[in-house]
Amino acid sequence: MVTSPTLHKLFVNGERLHNKINELAKIGLQPNGAIRRLAFSPEDIQARKLVQQWMLEAGMKVSTDAAGNLIGIYPGLIENAPTLATGSHIDTVPSGGRFDGVLGVLAGIEIVQTLRDNNTLLNYPIEVIVFADEESTMIGCQAMAGTVLLDAPERYQTKIGESIQTCLEKIGGNWQDLITAKRSRGDMAAFVELHVEQGMVLERMSKEIGIVEGVVGMRRMAITITGQSNHAGTTPMNMRQDALVAAAKLVLAVQEIALGIPSQPVATVGYLNVVPNAVNIVPGLVELSVDMRDLSLGCLDEMQQQLERVIIEIAGQTDTQISMKPLLCVEPTPAADTVQLAIETVCQEMGLSYCHLPSRAGHDALEVGRITDMGMIFVPSQAGVSHSENEYTTPEQCTQGASVLFNTFIGLDKHK
Amino acid sequence: MVTSPTLHKLFVNGERLHNKINELAKIGLQPNGAIRRLAFSPEDIQARKLVQQWMLEAGMKVSTDAAGNLIGIYPGLIENAPTLATGSHIDTVPSGGRFDGVLGVLAGIEIVQTLRDNNTLLNYPIEVIVFADEESTMIGCQAMAGTVLLDAPERYQTKIGESIQTCLEKIGGNWQDLITAKRSRGDMAAFVELHVEQGMVLERMSKEIGIVEGVVGMRRMAITITGQSNHAGTTPMNMRQDALVAAAKLVLAVQEIALGIPSQPVATVGYLNVVPNAVNIVPGLVELSVDMRDLSLGCLDEMQQQLERVIIEIAGQTDTQISMKPLLCVEPTPAADTVQLAIETVCQEMGLSYCHLPSRAGHDALEVGRITDMGMIFVPSQAGVSHSENEYTTPEQCTQGASVLFNTFIGLDKHK
Repeated sequence: MVTSPTLHKLFVNGERLHNKINELAKIGLQPNGAIRRLAFSPEDIQARKLVQQWMLEAGMKVSTDAAGNLIGIYPGLIENAPTLATGSHIDTVPSGGRFDGVLGVLAGIEIVQTLRDNNTLLNYPIEVIVFADEESTMIGCQAMAGTVLLDAPERYQTKIGESIQTCLEKIGGNWQDLITAKRSRGDMAAFVELHVEQGMVLERMSKEIGIVEGVVGMRRMAITITGQSNHAGTTPMNMRQDALVAAAKLVLAVQEIALGIPSQPVATVGYLNVVPNAVNIVPGLVELSVDMRDLSLGCLDEMQQQLERVIIEIAGQTDTQISMKPLLCVEPTPAADTVQLAIETVCQEMGLSYCHLPSRAGHDALEVGRITDMGMIFVPSQAGVSHSENEYTTPEQCTQGASVLFNTFIGLDKHK
Repeated sequence: MVTSPTLHKLFVNGERLHNKINELAKIGLQPNGAIRRLAFSPEDIQARKLVQQWMLEAGMKVSTDAAGNLIGIYPGLIENAPTLATGSHIDTVPSGGRFDGVLGVLAGIEIVQTLRDNNTLLNYPIEVIVFADEESTMIGCQAMAGTVLLDAPERYQTKIGESIQTCLEKIGGNWQDLITAKRSRGDMAAFVELHVEQGMVLERMSKEIGIVEGVVGMRRMAITITGQSNHAGTTPMNMRQDALVAAAKLVLAVQEIALGIPSQPVATVGYLNVVPNAVNIVPGLVELSVDMRDLSLGCLDEMQQQLERVIIEIAGQTDTQISMKPLLCVEPTPAADTVQLAIETVCQEMGLSYCHLPSRAGHDALEVGRITDMGMIFVPSQAGVSHSENEYTTPEQCTQGASVLFNTFIGLDKHK
C-alpha cells in the first residue's frame, strides 16, 4: 500500500461508475423506463445484495446496522480514526429515476475501488453507507442521528404497507435494537453526500457543481377551511361563506409570504380538496396543505407566524372558520464551512464551474448532519426533473461529481 | 256551476294541501328524511300515478304528452280559451327535500279541487302540469318550449343512467314525437309557478311572498389551467408554473367580476380539481368550473368578456396556459309585468308582506316563459336550505303561497 501523496494522479473510472448505475437500474425497471424499487420490497433487497457484492469487490468490510443501513468500511492508515463517510440510498419512489440516491452510493464505491486498484489508503477509513428507506420513513439516517421516535413505530409507515418492525427484519435490521444504530459525534470526521440536484438551478446557471449550503428544514401543515355549502344560484354573493374563496386567498398569501422573505424560501400549496366539489354548489369545505422550507430556523418561524396571522385575517374576510394542524416539522441542517470550503477548493483546482445553493429536498445528509460535519455535492438534473422516468444526468456529470467527492475526501483527509 | 263573482269567498284547504305533500313524501323517503325520487325511476313513476289520481279526483281531464309531461285540465266557462297554466315537478335530486317542485304541483291541484268543491269554473280552463325531469335534463319544460335539441338525444343524460328515449317511454312519452309536445304562443294565457325560494332572501328580509322578476340565465364554463408539476422543495418560487396559484387568482377574479356589477349577478367556482394533488409537488394542472347567472343577457355577456380578459392576464402572470370551454348557456327569462302586477295586487289585498327578486335557480318556468307570459311566486325556505332533508317551509307558508296563486289566477281571469 502507498500513501496519499500520490493521490493527485488518481482518477475515478467514469465508465465503471456508469455501468454500475445502469446495472442497478435493471432492478425494478418498469416498461416506461421508471424505476420502482420501494424500500423493503424484493427489488430493494435484491439491489442491496448487488451493492453489497460491489462493496466487497472494492475491498470493503460490510455490515448492516439495526436500522438496516448497509455499511461498507475501507480501512485507513491511522488506526481507530474517525471515518470519512459518504453514501445515500438505493430505494426509490413508486415511479422514480435511476440517479436519485444511487449516484451517491455508487460514487462512494467507485472512490474506494479506485483507491483499491491503486493499492492506496487514505489516513482515515472511508465509510460508504446505503441508508435504509430514504424515500419514505428515513428510518436509516434518522436512526444514525438518533432522531427516531423509538416509542412510536406506528409513525413509520412504509410504502409496502407492512410494519416498520417487519420491514427492518427483511433487510437485517431490528427495531428493538435501533438505539445501537445511533452514531456518536466523533465517529465520522465528516459526511459528504453526492446527489443529483433534482432542481433547475445548476442547469439555468450553467454550473457543473453545486456546493450545498445546507439541507432546508420544513414545516408542513394541514389546513381546514369551513364555510357553508349553498346553492350557487340562489345564494347572493354577500350571503356566502365560500370556503374556496377563502382557500384562494390563502394559496396566494402562502406564495406572497415566501416571495416577501429575502432568503428565498419556498412555500407551496400542493394539495387542495373541495367539498362537495359540484359545479352548482358554493363550496362549504376545503382542505389544503402548506409546505414551507428554508435553511434558517428563524425564517421558518417567521413564515409560520405570518401564515397564522393571515389565516385569522382571511377567516374574518370570508366568514369562514380556518384551523391549522402541524403535519411535519423538520429542523434545517447547515453544511459545515470546512466541508463547503474543501469542495470549493476542489472545484477551483479541477476548473469546474460551481455555485452555492441550499438543498430544498430532504436527503440522508439532513439527518447525518446532526451528528457530524456535513456537506453535499450536487450535479445537474436535466430540466430539473426527478422522481420520474425522465430523470437524467449525463455520464460526464456523474463522473465529475464522483471526482469532486473523491478529491474532497482527499482534501479533508489532509486537513483533519 | 256558478261563476267567478263569488270567488272572493273561496279559500284553499291548507290541511288538505299539507296532507298531500306528506303523502307524496312517502314515495322515495330515505332513512335520513331525504327524498330520493329520481326522474324516470320506479319512485317517480309511482308518484306520477298518485298525482294523476289526485288530478282525476279534482275533476281534471288528464293526459301525458310526448315529453312525459303529465297534464291535468280543468274546464273554463269560455270555450276554446287559452289556459291559466301552473305546475312544477315531482322528481327530486338524489337526496332532496319534500317541497321543491311538489308544492307547485299540489297547490295547482288544490286550487282546482277548491273550485270543484264549490262547483265553480273560471272563465279560462286551468292547466296543471307535472313537468318531466326538471332536476336533470329539463326535458319536459324544454319540449313544451321547443328548445330540445332533437338531433342530439345523447345530450340528455338521465340520472338513472338510461337513454332519454328509454326513459320517456317509461312515463308514457316518446322521443320520436317530441315535437308534438311543443306549445304555441296563445295556448296558455299565462303560466304561474309557485315554488319554495331555495334561498335566504325572503327569510332575511322577513317577507312572506317573493314576486319573481324572472329566471336568471346561466353561463357555465370548464376551465383548464396547465402549468408544470414540480418538486415543492427544489423549485424556486420564481421558476414555478404553479397551476393552483393561477387557479386561486381566477377564483378571486370570478368573485370580483360578480361583485363589480350593480345588478348583483352571482358567479361561482364550485368545482376545482388539482393534479397531481400531492403535498410536496407544485400543482401542474387544475380543472375548475365557473357558473355565472343573471337576469340580464347584457350582464352575462359582460361577465363572460371580463372573464376572458382576466384569464389572459392570469396566464401571463403565472406562466401557465388557460383554456375555457362552454358547458352550458341558458338565456334568461323575464317574468311578464302583467303577471307580476297580478301577484303584487293579490299580496296587497291579502295583507301579505312581499318583495321582488330574481330566481337564480332554474325552474320549469324558465322554459315555459319562452312561449307565454310567465310569473313565479316564492315562499320562504327555512335557512335557505334546499336539495336536502332539511328543506323546510311551514304549512302556513305553503297555504299562503297556494292562496296567492289561486287569487292571481282569479285576477288574471278577469284581466285577460
